[in-house]
Amino acid sequence: MNKHFSKRDIENMDERYRAHFVNSLSGFKSANLVGTKSHDGLENLAIVSSVLHLGSSPALMGMVMRPDTVRRDTLENIQNTLFYTLNHVVNDDVPKAHQTSARYDREESEFETTGLANEYLDNFHAPFVQSSPVKLGMKLVEIMPIKHNGTLFIIGSVEHAYVAESALADDGFVSLSSQNVVCINGLDAYLSPQAPRRYAYAKKEKPTSLL
Amino acid sequence: MNKHFSKRDIENMDERYRAHFVNSLSGFKSANLVGTKSHDGLENLAIVSSVLHLGSSPALMGMVMRPDTVRRDTLENIQNTLFYTLNHVVNDDVPKAHQTSARYDREESEFETTGLANEYLDNFHAPFVQSSPVKLGMKLVEIMPIKHNGTLFIIGSVEHAYVAESALADDGFVSLSSQNVVCINGLDAYLSPQAPRRYAYAKKEKPTSLL
Repeated sequence: MNKHFSKRDIENMDERYRAHFVNSLSGFKSANLVGTKSHDGLENLAIVSSVLHLGSSPALMGMVMRPDTVRRDTLENIQNTLFYTLNHVVNDDVPKAHQTSARYDREESEFETTGLANEYLDNFHAPFVQSSPVKLGMKLVEIMPIKHNGTLFIIGSVEHAYVAESALADDGFVSLSSQNVVCINGLDAYLSPQAPRRYAYAKKEKPTSLL
Repeated sequence: MNKHFSKRDIENMDERYRAHFVNSLSGFKSANLVGTKSHDGLENLAIVSSVLHLGSSPALMGMVMRPDTVRRDTLENIQNTLFYTLNHVVNDDVPKAHQTSARYDREESEFETTGLANEYLDNFHAPFVQSSPVKLGMKLVEIMPIKHNGTLFIIGSVEHAYVAESALADDGFVSLSSQNVVCINGLDAYLSPQAPRRYAYAKKEKPTSLL
């Protein structure tokens, strides 16, 4: 049985209930740790579930952030330095990754408070997460304000990608489940995607077939 | 071992290889079927992996589309009628859902060609996917052009949500894995997220704990 919620039903929900509910409605979400460093050398690490593929040529990623949350330090570092990293979260790192969403002081590095090891690669300004099997060095391209709710859509280009060799298929596909990368449901549920099934490019005159 | 790809390495990849590669880099993606209907009554159904939670109050979802692809009919229907549906894809529907990405003629309804049953609810203009355990009736709010690659960021408000009762937790969380909803890796891999672990709201002075 399905339950129907109108727009007004959603508006009338208790704020916390609504946050859990609406955050579940988009489907499964990516789990990324955003690594940044301020000009004065203070590191920041924050989990986000809003990273989105925007295009492959050029390689662009989008990400939604609110200016008024605990991720403010991250946002300021991106705006001031232009550089950030995106690091996929693996199963074993979930408790530490989730803990980065706590409200730490600006002087505290979430690398240190959570115990996730940082890593600097190829002279890139922002720190990576050492244990992540897919790490991206990103450069800010544009911040688009979303006027309807005050969020920001942050567009960045992929300057560097570090990918576990054992995840890489012959055709360029990167198997995230082979590396135990997790996904997110709602605000606080982490899951392990299993049993990848790849399908052949769909054609009108052909039945659907596995690759 | 990690393999390093610079921005130039990615630019120099074969186009198809790059599409598989970069589409894998954002992390796991949501799997949604977008249902639309033209003013002259022609239905369209297209799978997308770019639906994103934008905000809970008001409840807004974002979605990236390219104007120049097989999803053009879907885009035109959204622009012309303002209404569309988002329907989460379940395990059993994956072959049919994937097949909607084939290049059908405008006159052909992907509901009919793939065998996914449509459903009209509460006089909403656009058709829903009957078998989907989470269905959203969406109204277009804004289309933001992304100038860097010609894609469009489509923002819509949630007018109706239909959620399987057995998925709904007491605090508003909707368990997608309880309904066998899938996620996507790259362009063509479908996975079943398993074993949801919910974590308590993170606080600085408290160790991470399961909910």
